[in-house]
Amino acid sequence: MTNIKLTIEYDGTDFRGWQIQSRGERTVQAVIRDTFFHIFGENINLIGSGRTDSGVHAAGQVANFRTAVRKPPAEIRNALNAHLPKDVAILEAVPVPDDFHAQYSAKSKTYRYQILNREVRSPLGERTALRFIYPLNTELMQTAANELVGEHDFRSFKGTNRSNRNGNDVRTVSVLKVRRKGELITVDITANGFLYKMVRNISGLLLECGAGRIPPREVRRILRARDRKAAPAAAPAHGLSLIKVAYPGRKMG
Amino acid sequence: MTNIKLTIEYDGTDFRGWQIQSRGERTVQAVIRDTFFHIFGENINLIGSGRTDSGVHAAGQVANFRTAVRKPPAEIRNALNAHLPKDVAILEAVPVPDDFHAQYSAKSKTYRYQILNREVRSPLGERTALRFIYPLNTELMQTAANELVGEHDFRSFKGTNRSNRNGNDVRTVSVLKVRRKGELITVDITANGFLYKMVRNISGLLLECGAGRIPPREVRRILRARDRKAAPAAAPAHGLSLIKVAYPGRKMG
Repeated sequence: MTNIKLTIEYDGTDFRGWQIQSRGERTVQAVIRDTFFHIFGENINLIGSGRTDSGVHAAGQVANFRTAVRKPPAEIRNALNAHLPKDVAILEAVPVPDDFHAQYSAKSKTYRYQILNREVRSPLGERTALRFIYPLNTELMQTAANELVGEHDFRSFKGTNRSNRNGNDVRTVSVLKVRRKGELITVDITANGFLYKMVRNISGLLLECGAGRIPPREVRRILRARDRKAAPAAAPAHGLSLIKVAYPGRKMG
Repeated sequence: MTNIKLTIEYDGTDFRGWQIQSRGERTVQAVIRDTFFHIFGENINLIGSGRTDSGVHAAGQVANFRTAVRKPPAEIRNALNAHLPKDVAILEAVPVPDDFHAQYSAKSKTYRYQILNREVRSPLGERTALRFIYPLNTELMQTAANELVGEHDFRSFKGTNRSNRNGNDVRTVSVLKVRRKGELITVDITANGFLYKMVRNISGLLLECGAGRIPPREVRRILRARDRKAAPAAAPAHGLSLIKVAYPGRKMG
């Protein structure tokens, strides 16, 4: 059996997220697994670095699987790309050591949240960015963001729609950078791990800070509350993309 | 009657181009005209700055129309945006002098051709960029592009699929700039006017030059041939966007 690592890009618009659903919804994991079966006749257990929600995109999701198929990984990649639907593609397929696990081996992940700061709808931009009509002050957003960098208990930013009420909510955010280029604002966030909906919940807070509705000095209080109700609503899924998953070591990155 | 100038953004993927077609195809011009009629009960003659082909996008198409509707243009814009489909939006509506004509008053237009220079399909990028798998040398592309800047007879780059075989094919290209940022190459071209399919035909030539199949020194010969058969095939429509139409004067731009 060969352990193969895939790097995957997808437009999340028409997917019900990454994770296989019991009711057969169209998910990225299911589509790749079914396509592999269709080509090679083998059922694979495709392990993702983590779930992405319905509507979230990825430019660099990572997954791994073990297979008895004895073909060069690049050939497997090309075969998958020839059969996968237009909204998902395998960027890279490489053999990895047997103990590589896309979720447990991950050292950090980077997400990007994109905001189009303008009044009018954007037919070309709103597939992968949230349109936000109130003027955003990116300096205020960055000041607020700085309060979240470092090791913190992020319970105030953990989605409640799951059975993960308990558990360790401490994560380390190493990068949280807000940039503006014309109408487009990007929020890049790197951490050693993310709680459920953590990026969208943080982005929702940064939007409120940028719009002047929550002063950045409130962020510390919100963080310390360890209460989801202390922070504002999550930003919508379609502005979010998983852009990189990093692994330790020379040959796995 | 008020003369109103519209600035329009559209995702050309699901449109049969700008221009109203006799057989009722879905075109941008038809969709805006029909939406205006639906809201205000008035048939407008919507004059575009020029046609865009089936599949070509726009971030800044311009059109004008005369109307008896006595509402502030911003209100007309908002009403249109509320009723137009997701893939087209009015960015701006402003009153203009009676002699303003979106096509004849135009001083210059700027198009952008986007190329994703990579091997693998891109689910997130290929809606508005051509994927080109052979490595492109942008210095060669720029050297070739420089040969086209200035006033020339561009007949070698004029699409033949039309009844415009004769006429004046001299145009002045003021900007032709090739830029690379990672995998993405953009070709920006500004001219006082464009022949049918001229941008796509020029982009097709620049791709051949960048791939090393046509040396840039051949460009002068191709230009002078004044023969469409002397130049390579047009680049596909979906990589092209009309990004700006410029008009003279202070209040029209």
